[in-house]
Amino acid sequence: MARTRITPEREKELYGAVLDLLREVGYDGLTMDAIAARTHSSKATLYRQWGSKPELVARAMRDHEPDNIADIDTGSLRGDFHEMILRTDDCQLEKDSALMRALFHAVHENPDLHRALRELLIEPEMTGLDVLLRRAVDRGEVAADSPALAFVPHMLIGAFVGRQLIEDAPTDREFLAGYIEAVVLPALGA
Amino acid sequence: MARTRITPEREKELYGAVLDLLREVGYDGLTMDAIAARTHSSKATLYRQWGSKPELVARAMRDHEPDNIADIDTGSLRGDFHEMILRTDDCQLEKDSALMRALFHAVHENPDLHRALRELLIEPEMTGLDVLLRRAVDRGEVAADSPALAFVPHMLIGAFVGRQLIEDAPTDREFLAGYIEAVVLPALGA
Repeated sequence: MARTRITPEREKELYGAVLDLLREVGYDGLTMDAIAARTHSSKATLYRQWGSKPELVARAMRDHEPDNIADIDTGSLRGDFHEMILRTDDCQLEKDSALMRALFHAVHENPDLHRALRELLIEPEMTGLDVLLRRAVDRGEVAADSPALAFVPHMLIGAFVGRQLIEDAPTDREFLAGYIEAVVLPALGA
Repeated sequence: MARTRITPEREKELYGAVLDLLREVGYDGLTMDAIAARTHSSKATLYRQWGSKPELVARAMRDHEPDNIADIDTGSLRGDFHEMILRTDDCQLEKDSALMRALFHAVHENPDLHRALRELLIEPEMTGLDVLLRRAVDRGEVAADSPALAFVPHMLIGAFVGRQLIEDAPTDREFLAGYIEAVVLPALGA
C-alpha cells in the first residue's frame, strides 16, 4: 500500500499541520493546495496517500486523539471520567473546541466528511466510552437498564458546545469535572 | 424611532425571509444585498431599521421564538418540559437545528453577532428557563442547591447537537422527550 512510503514521523507532522490549518481557516477554506504548501508536499502525493480531503481530515483527527479511552480503568466510573479529563490539558481542550466548531457546520454540508469522521473517529470513541460504561454496569455502579447510558455522548457534547455558547468561556478541565459530578454521574444514578 | 414605519406584518415577513436565507447560505453567505433582494427592500432601509447584519439576524431569531418559556406553568417540572416540547413540532425542530448549525461556527468568528444573540436571544431564554426551574425548587421538586441547575441549558444543547453528530438523525420531539426523562430530570434529582 502506498501509505507505507511515508515515515510515521512525517505522517504525524503532516496531520498536525492539517489540523492547525483547519483551526485557522475552517473546513471550506482548507484546500489541498493549502495543505500541500504548508506541508511541502505535492498535491499528487496527498491524493495518492489519502484519496480525498475528507479522508485526510478524518485520519488527521484520529491521529490527534491522545489514546484509547477504553484503556482507562481506575476501578470506578467517577475515577475513569476524571482520568479522561486529566489525560488532556486546558490548552488542548481549547484546541479541540476550535476543531469541533470548524467541523460541526461542515459535516452537514459534506456527507463524505461526516462518513469519514463517523467511521474513523466517532464510532471508535463511542466504542471506547461503551467499554468504560459496561465495566461500570458490571461493577454494579450503574443499572444495566439505565436509560441515561445511551445519552452519555450527548451530555458530554453539551458541555463542550454549551460552555462557549452560553458562558462565552473556554471548556476547561475544571468545568468538565464539575459537569461530570453535577450531570453525568447523577443522570446515570452512579 | 424609525422602526415604527414598518408594519408588524411586514416586519414578521422580513424576519422569516432572513431566517430562510440564513439556513440556505449560512451566516457568511448572508449579505445585506441578498436580504434586500429577497425581501424587496432597499439596503438603505435595512441599515436604517436594524443598524447592522448581526442585529438584524439576532432580532429575526428572537421574533422566530414561538413564545416565552416562562409562561409555561403546568404544575410540575416534568409537565413544563414536555409542554416546551409540545409547543413546537418536528419540522420546526429540524429548522431550528439548521439555524443552530448555521450560527454556531459564525458566533465564534463574529463577536458582534455573539453579543447580539446573547442579549436578544440567549439571555431571555436562560431567564425563562430559570423561572421554570425556580418554580420547581419552590415546589420542592428540585433541591435549591442542586449543582445540575446551572447546567440545564448545556444538557439541552447536547441533545440538539449530539443527535445529529452521533446518530446522524434529526432532533425530534420523541428524542427530546426521552432525553428529558433519561438525563435532565434524573440529573436534577426530580
